[in-house]
Amino acid sequence: VTASGRRRLRALGFRVGDLATGPRNAISDIAGVRVGHVTLIRDTAPGAAVRTGVTAIVPPADVFAAKLPAASYVLNGHGKALGLVQIDELGTLETPILLTNTLSVGAIAEGVVRWTLGRHGDARTVNAVVAECNDGYLNDIRGLHVRPDHARDAIEAATADVAEGSVGAGTGMSCFGYKGGIGTSSRVAEHTLGALVLANFGRARDLALHGWLLRGAVADTGASAGDDGSCIVVLATDAPLDARQLRRLAVRGALGIARAGGYAANRSGDIVIAFSTDPDGARLRDESAEMDDLFRMAPDAVLESILNALCVADRMVGHEGHVREGFPYARLEN
Amino acid sequence: VTASGRRRLRALGFRVGDLATGPRNAISDIAGVRVGHVTLIRDTAPGAAVRTGVTAIVPPADVFAAKLPAASYVLNGHGKALGLVQIDELGTLETPILLTNTLSVGAIAEGVVRWTLGRHGDARTVNAVVAECNDGYLNDIRGLHVRPDHARDAIEAATADVAEGSVGAGTGMSCFGYKGGIGTSSRVAEHTLGALVLANFGRARDLALHGWLLRGAVADTGASAGDDGSCIVVLATDAPLDARQLRRLAVRGALGIARAGGYAANRSGDIVIAFSTDPDGARLRDESAEMDDLFRMAPDAVLESILNALCVADRMVGHEGHVREGFPYARLEN
Amino acid sequence: VTASGRRRLRALGFRVGDLATGPRNAISDIAGVRVGHVTLIRDTAPGAAVRTGVTAIVPPADVFAAKLPAASYVLNGHGKALGLVQIDELGTLETPILLTNTLSVGAIAEGVVRWTLGRHGDARTVNAVVAECNDGYLNDIRGLHVRPDHARDAIEAATADVAEGSVGAGTGMSCFGYKGGIGTSSRVAEHTLGALVLANFGRARDLALHGWLLRGAVADTGASAGDDGSCIVVLATDAPLDARQLRRLAVRGALGIARAGGYAANRSGDIVIAFSTDPDGARLRDESAEMDDLFRMAPDAVLESILNALCVADRMVGHEGHVREGFPYARLEN
Amino acid sequence: VTASGRRRLRALGFRVGDLATGPRNAISDIAGVRVGHVTLIRDTAPGAAVRTGVTAIVPPADVFAAKLPAASYVLNGHGKALGLVQIDELGTLETPILLTNTLSVGAIAEGVVRWTLGRHGDARTVNAVVAECNDGYLNDIRGLHVRPDHARDAIEAATADVAEGSVGAGTGMSCFGYKGGIGTSSRVAEHTLGALVLANFGRARDLALHGWLLRGAVADTGASAGDDGSCIVVLATDAPLDARQLRRLAVRGALGIARAGGYAANRSGDIVIAFSTDPDGARLRDESAEMDDLFRMAPDAVLESILNALCVADRMVGHEGHVREGFPYARLEN
Repeated sequence: VTASGRRRLRALGFRVGDLATGPRNAISDIAGVRVGHVTLIRDTAPGAAVRTGVTAIVPPADVFAAKLPAASYVLNGHGKALGLVQIDELGTLETPILLTNTLSVGAIAEGVVRWTLGRHGDARTVNAVVAECNDGYLNDIRGLHVRPDHARDAIEAATADVAEGSVGAGTGMSCFGYKGGIGTSSRVAEHTLGALVLANFGRARDLALHGWLLRGAVADTGASAGDDGSCIVVLATDAPLDARQLRRLAVRGALGIARAGGYAANRSGDIVIAFSTDPDGARLRDESAEMDDLFRMAPDAVLESILNALCVADRMVGHEGHVREGFPYARLEN
Repeated sequence: VTASGRRRLRALGFRVGDLATGPRNAISDIAGVRVGHVTLIRDTAPGAAVRTGVTAIVPPADVFAAKLPAASYVLNGHGKALGLVQIDELGTLETPILLTNTLSVGAIAEGVVRWTLGRHGDARTVNAVVAECNDGYLNDIRGLHVRPDHARDAIEAATADVAEGSVGAGTGMSCFGYKGGIGTSSRVAEHTLGALVLANFGRARDLALHGWLLRGAVADTGASAGDDGSCIVVLATDAPLDARQLRRLAVRGALGIARAGGYAANRSGDIVIAFSTDPDGARLRDESAEMDDLFRMAPDAVLESILNALCVADRMVGHEGHVREGFPYARLEN
Repeated sequence: VTASGRRRLRALGFRVGDLATGPRNAISDIAGVRVGHVTLIRDTAPGAAVRTGVTAIVPPADVFAAKLPAASYVLNGHGKALGLVQIDELGTLETPILLTNTLSVGAIAEGVVRWTLGRHGDARTVNAVVAECNDGYLNDIRGLHVRPDHARDAIEAATADVAEGSVGAGTGMSCFGYKGGIGTSSRVAEHTLGALVLANFGRARDLALHGWLLRGAVADTGASAGDDGSCIVVLATDAPLDARQLRRLAVRGALGIARAGGYAANRSGDIVIAFSTDPDGARLRDESAEMDDLFRMAPDAVLESILNALCVADRMVGHEGHVREGFPYARLEN
Repeated sequence: VTASGRRRLRALGFRVGDLATGPRNAISDIAGVRVGHVTLIRDTAPGAAVRTGVTAIVPPADVFAAKLPAASYVLNGHGKALGLVQIDELGTLETPILLTNTLSVGAIAEGVVRWTLGRHGDARTVNAVVAECNDGYLNDIRGLHVRPDHARDAIEAATADVAEGSVGAGTGMSCFGYKGGIGTSSRVAEHTLGALVLANFGRARDLALHGWLLRGAVADTGASAGDDGSCIVVLATDAPLDARQLRRLAVRGALGIARAGGYAANRSGDIVIAFSTDPDGARLRDESAEMDDLFRMAPDAVLESILNALCVADRMVGHEGHVREGFPYARLEN
């Protein structure tokens, strides 16, 4: 329960699917994975509102020294993500994963580079991984209020206790016409899978809450996340997957967006980044059984992450007086 | 209503989403697109059952002479589809699209080549497009009962009146633990989009009929399509899309599989092939509006196609006495 | 030296690069890898000539029972290769690799399936890998003279002694305006890399024999391989590469085509398939050193394979009286 | 002839291939395409040397208002390029293309965003395109001497008169063990193709100057560009290509790297970005003829660009006293 009384999906009596969650039901159920936020909220002038921030997903140990297996999947690429080229080629992650707003990728990239250089005196090449959504409806995005040092601050604030909703990069985001932002969830079988999303997509009419049968009956609130709406997904697992297997897992993460009702709008930047905390990178041998466990987990964990973002995020008044209401829980009931 | 009394989803009082369908609610709502089936059902010896076939999706006019814009998307590639390499490179389709069982891709490829050579006396290269699912649970798949001439027969049987369920390539297929097969649907706004699926995937527990909220409460029937389960999707549209745009549309077709509850199992061959019947290949200029219309249509049309396959296909006894029950309509109600 | 007196490149006093070759300077320098050919040469009627065939690259042991790490790379995809979808997804090879003419992919696919079913009584899914070039200039390609059993015959004829030039799938192929076909070569450092090509591309003016400085001075013979010209490359290695690494290696194989003067013409189907004979699939740890060794080997081995095909293949008179001369060795001198 | 007496390849009496060049033999032969450099050379302390910079390739007109068809191709992805995700999805370019050093991608990205926001008061999303090579051998790369405003300065300095060698992003780069940097070239047939490279790859032994036959005889100078060596290629054309066709053209650009002797080392970031200045994006109809003209041009123009970089760049003493000699022209003769 947040200060304003907002709750996660399960605290409201609902759940997604039949697979077990980890103890935190968060990406930090993967041992050593932590999440940090820098939240920027201030009013700089009448009508000019800063509603933005930075979120860092921090892998265990020193990932630059001991790179981890990683992969990416682009469901729709109207986005400005940095670092995917090298992940795709080498199949490794060497920095935390940073999320921010669309126009601040450069600043955060510089911040990640500075932070890495500061810890590694001989580093001369750094593959900063930064993804973004567009918070320009609630945030003075043109003001470029995110600065390089915010990357360091987010990384150093990382904890296993993951705040959700209007925090960090999620501060100014919208989802299905309501306030969106950061959400997380996890699933456990033989291995654990954690998801964290930056949810900033969809119109009210698209939300597939009641399943396809009833979707036509849901009234459109008229609210819209705009056609820049996107969803960034980060998946972490302790399963010993190699890069090829992680890419397959990332594809399944994107299916969770579809289950929520997303259709990857033309102007969306829907991107999944997946990594394993098993540094040995030994791959699972029996793909049929164990991979299918993970493949089932991914859409469920991503869908529940999206709904957690929606349920936790509270009403916000932002730039130029724009307003996003908190998601009305009554819509879960019918 | 089929001879055995099976019905399509809408005849049962349900629908998918709020977008309008075309007059046939079938891929043949795209002018000139027709579908033909060859259905092979016979018992060759005690316990040895042929339950297989071939389905041809036939574009308008002479597609070899006037190639059409086309694209493919592989959601999961444990499959044996032929012809995608050239579609991906040149962005064009030059033959009908043939569907059959896993071990018969070669025979049908030769059939498509023979059929094309017969009509084009100067042809010396033909890109046959063939996709498949594995019907080995109900069909004596190792018997290789599909022969090259069945390709010709399916093409020449094509009509705008699309039979669904256990016909053509769908004859021996299973879906969500019940009898599956061929299904089709369409959506209409400024342009028309049609889908046809060969549905052969999923266990009963995975079917997302009631949406995610209730999924955990659905009992598993114990029936399984096996881990080879796959779904082939063909999309046709009269919208003037180029190959790049069609590939983006194909991605959205795959999202319909996710909406049904599919997660692209490790051993699935989930493949989408999309083509436009507009030979000019001029691309839509205002992508934001018109592309989003099409992007919304694709998951809905694919989901309804899958459910049509499930609702229409009737109980079948097959190879080695294996049985698939027809989908019980009562499951739609609760 | 062939019966007609043709020689390999090194027998003519030339070499490619400064890396050492294996003892056979052939793909069979990878322990257990063998190559078999079926060569079809006959005159069926005045002017109607069969000049085609099948080549099988056979991995060690029973590859269906113990699948090997594999990858593919499509430099240009105007081609009809079968089996790449599953190789790309699962990163494994489970059949020999078959090469033939463009219109015979279906027949050979059925042949590979039959051969595999015959050896594995429980097999119900087989990913046949078949690639092709177009021999329609010298061969009556529309006659479909390659039959399914030729796949079995090529596989069962496999030996470590690799015949080159106008044999197997290379029988009717052309290269740089002269007679082309099958060529092979290898390189050895810590690990061994072998290449085999089906060379059927390029005009005389494109051959970069003397390097770029002199290329403009080489007269065009007027001969042309036609715009269907393609080059299929198979790479085998005993290095313990995983599928991601093999794909990277496959990319370097394509660079050998460029070194020969190829530019991947619009209508080419230039495709590389790479596999490792190390079944453990453990990946190299020190990518920088060992991968670069392999990356240097690949273009050299492919270039020398192409030149071996060119040097060994002898003059051929084919369909409709078409003629390809043997490559004149004098062109190597100046 | 530069101030220090260095010359382009053709001024030395050599050429690449037999196709005609444009009047400038530069990427600016494409009407409206201009190139600007910011060159940073200063000694900040004993042994600490700034040898870096920024290069902007500026398309005609206001590319943000009228986006141009574009595509990318990654030959090897050990690189930090930004902006490729959106280019790949939408097939359009909306900013100049900026080149700089590896650690300055973030700063330059912010600079491009600021420059675009300054000119477009309603812009809320900007896809900055930035690519890089690693100049850490000659440059104090860890000093992060490139600042955001250098992006603006490079863009505003753009001219049709393209400086080559140790300028802009090329200031601290190395190639084949000698001084490298910026090079450009063009080819003309029915349409014009221009190339610009940032050449920073290869060891002396790899340079294929004399063609493959003699390569083994070339002595290794011992100099090395290090294992971070990369080559960025920008292609511009006035041919009316769509994004799919431009991607195919980009692949051919990469073949020019291979012709020079490059093999895309494990740690290289070899990336090609191609765009058309034809805003209509109508695609060529007769791909066979016109595309092949362009496909032949690309490797030649890229190879000559690399050699121009090598021939023009002069000796440089840099960070920690590291030295790169100018390429000795005598090596062209034998």
